[in-house]
Amino acid sequence: MPFVLKEIVYMEYCGKVVSSRSKYAPPGGHRCYRQVAHEGNCHETPYLAHLSSVEPSVARKIGRDAVMTTGAAWASEDAGPNRIRRWVMLYSDDELRGLGIHMADLKPGIQAKLRDKAATYEDCMRVAQKLTALVYGMPNAPTPPDDIRAYLQVVTGDPITENSTTCLVCLDLLDFRLFKEARRGRAEIETAHRNPRKHTLENVGFAHRPCNIAQGDKTLEDFYAWIASILAKVKAAGSSRPLK
Amino acid sequence: MPFVLKEIVYMEYCGKVVSSRSKYAPPGGHRCYRQVAHEGNCHETPYLAHLSSVEPSVARKIGRDAVMTTGAAWASEDAGPNRIRRWVMLYSDDELRGLGIHMADLKPGIQAKLRDKAATYEDCMRVAQKLTALVYGMPNAPTPPDDIRAYLQVVTGDPITENSTTCLVCLDLLDFRLFKEARRGRAEIETAHRNPRKHTLENVGFAHRPCNIAQGDKTLEDFYAWIASILAKVKAAGSSRPLK
Repeated sequence: MPFVLKEIVYMEYCGKVVSSRSKYAPPGGHRCYRQVAHEGNCHETPYLAHLSSVEPSVARKIGRDAVMTTGAAWASEDAGPNRIRRWVMLYSDDELRGLGIHMADLKPGIQAKLRDKAATYEDCMRVAQKLTALVYGMPNAPTPPDDIRAYLQVVTGDPITENSTTCLVCLDLLDFRLFKEARRGRAEIETAHRNPRKHTLENVGFAHRPCNIAQGDKTLEDFYAWIASILAKVKAAGSSRPLK
Repeated sequence: MPFVLKEIVYMEYCGKVVSSRSKYAPPGGHRCYRQVAHEGNCHETPYLAHLSSVEPSVARKIGRDAVMTTGAAWASEDAGPNRIRRWVMLYSDDELRGLGIHMADLKPGIQAKLRDKAATYEDCMRVAQKLTALVYGMPNAPTPPDDIRAYLQVVTGDPITENSTTCLVCLDLLDFRLFKEARRGRAEIETAHRNPRKHTLENVGFAHRPCNIAQGDKTLEDFYAWIASILAKVKAAGSSRPLK
């Protein structure tokens, strides 16, 4: 199942620095992602304005998943902050020490897991654009205003088609209302990656929580090959499979 | 894939109370599981004596997995203890309150997850026996002394065959040395259940950690049907699958 990279039309962004007060700000500062020569104020995520107004929790999830590592699984007292901006994981151990993140204090496996989540600021911003476009393509999603629809279509290179967004893993349509559902405190839709070590526009999507968990740290291709091998072994064992 | 229940030969146990000091002790107290009319001291887990001596961490894992709920995922300040003895989850909310576990304070989903883990003391003890027998059947496992081998064969109703223990999910042989391996702080072998809501001798086994995680809270049969449906959808989508 080769991934065909479609031609993507880039938008010329304004690019002005909008805010750099946080010690975790990217090296060049947070940037304005409105179109160059726009009127009015600069904004890093102008395409989230509508969703932030009508579905703020979903907009916050996009902003969080695009930028932050998921850290709950490795959180411990000496692990540093629970969630870390992905571009921060591109810094050297020395630079991280200056931010209060002591990589050398962590087990090699946890260090590797953190480093796996690294992504440039630019990729994080493009992921946020892609996730927003995917949300608008979900059944029962709100309808985007025309300007945001046009923006997202240009920056993702894809038209926004209603009722088109599918689970990255099982390919079933993902209903927007699943964002509201949570079982045992966990949302039923998660941000997912074809290759968990590539946080890029081409590589991200949404998935059902059980699908994303089952995929684990495998690439989608490896996951499909793995479950096919399980089914082949189960079939081969058939009814002769010992009960043990 | 129907599960064929084999005839199981029961051992007549001594059954004397060995210790009941803990407030979490089962209602009838902890019992001696040596054969009736044995010589020497009573013991709850006589079949773990050898493993406790040569591979103490594996023996401790068996004792823990047989008896305790896994609770890390729902642990929070007001969730009560992180791990709870499974038979305690058979008590009423009133009885639990007396033990400092306030079920009514928990979200319904967390309550349900806890209650799903309930099992009788007797089932927990039989699970420990089964897990011990499975460990001895793993490639590169230590060889059990004859008396323990004989004991486990009677209580599980199965001979202990070297190099026979397979992952409950993917059916590959499970190498004993995987107990020593850990990726990112998690052991590579986990205790698994054909039906995650049935903690019984017939229903438990070991699985690779990724296999157990992928199965999630599904029964094994549901898991196999689910991954087969995913593969069917991926195949149907084929190369026409849209990149989104």
